[in-house]
Amino acid sequence: MNYLILVRHGQSRWNLENRFAGWVDVPLSEKGIQEAMDCAEELADMQLDVAFTSKLSRAQETLFLILAKQKKTGIFLHESKKRDEWSYHPERFDDSEIPIYSDEHLNERYYGKLQGQNKQEAKTVYGEEQVFIWRRSYDVQPPGGESLKDTYERTIPYFEEKIMPELEAGKNVVIAAHGNSLRSVVKYIENISDEDIPKLELATGKPLYYQFVKGKFIKEE
Amino acid sequence: MNYLILVRHGQSRWNLENRFAGWVDVPLSEKGIQEAMDCAEELADMQLDVAFTSKLSRAQETLFLILAKQKKTGIFLHESKKRDEWSYHPERFDDSEIPIYSDEHLNERYYGKLQGQNKQEAKTVYGEEQVFIWRRSYDVQPPGGESLKDTYERTIPYFEEKIMPELEAGKNVVIAAHGNSLRSVVKYIENISDEDIPKLELATGKPLYYQFVKGKFIKEE
Repeated sequence: MNYLILVRHGQSRWNLENRFAGWVDVPLSEKGIQEAMDCAEELADMQLDVAFTSKLSRAQETLFLILAKQKKTGIFLHESKKRDEWSYHPERFDDSEIPIYSDEHLNERYYGKLQGQNKQEAKTVYGEEQVFIWRRSYDVQPPGGESLKDTYERTIPYFEEKIMPELEAGKNVVIAAHGNSLRSVVKYIENISDEDIPKLELATGKPLYYQFVKGKFIKEE
Repeated sequence: MNYLILVRHGQSRWNLENRFAGWVDVPLSEKGIQEAMDCAEELADMQLDVAFTSKLSRAQETLFLILAKQKKTGIFLHESKKRDEWSYHPERFDDSEIPIYSDEHLNERYYGKLQGQNKQEAKTVYGEEQVFIWRRSYDVQPPGGESLKDTYERTIPYFEEKIMPELEAGKNVVIAAHGNSLRSVVKYIENISDEDIPKLELATGKPLYYQFVKGKFIKEE
């Protein structure tokens, strides 16, 4: 029996300021660092075999603190070298190392013109109801941005193609990512309806555990 | 009175394997993570106002562990957006945040064709004396690579232009970098001779402290 573990990054500076971050590379807040450290404490004895994360610092920092607590080194394996000309490809992994795949398919929902806006300001500009709809509907896109459905449609093919094979190979997989990319994963594996998924709140820095048994996911409470 | 603090990153996987890393983005080893954590413990009560690091993970990871111990967030300020399209530029910094400048001028010595080679293999290929000369001379370049002098000549203009003004503004500055970029800085501020500088060994994860007083550096033992 192996596990899929989902971790939403700790609080970011813009979570704190109630601003839409989306793909802006906002770092963890002080509280977010503490949340990530608490998460690391909770996962300290969990054997993690492979990690997936986004291209955004707040998720990568959360993952890195989890691994550091285990005295593990995460080795970023880049499919493209565009962002990393001097990347490192080990011939083998030591027990103290795990591969990390960082990919923008796991990024936060792209919020378009809302990125950088305070949620109150956005309500003033677009109206409270409209902002509510953007945040809590499944398939309505904000200007220039993604709906949750769009996020799902880029996250899940990546999940199926890259993450499922690791689970099928019996590995314990951790995904350190974002509210909406993880909502997409939860929708997929728990088969949650379009209506219900936008309401699902994932707590920052609180791991969700799923046993992977014969191709099925069993949530551990 | 303010401080300049130099930190050589913890042991990397290739330090451990006795290979030339240079600009290859080799991660910290398990021991290197521990060294960085010990260093973080030592610096836990030190007020750090601004940080400089290289473009290489082992230095950035070391810095990140130092800041995380202080519950501080380091915010990468990118001069070029090439490597980071979604970077974050705060209008102001909170007490729990410090700016981080990451620049390849602070990278390790570029070792050219030696990168990736085990130091024993290199001795077999090029002869023990030649490898000794490359490692311990000031101005002899390995094939396709930099001499320590070359490293000095790219590190010090950056130090003068970007780091000195922060010290002159009374800030406590930490540089998390590499054996040879830090040797260059030490040569510059302690006025060490070309003959002596290649012999200087900087321990991994052990901070060096310099008081900055009226434009002079006073080493604290």
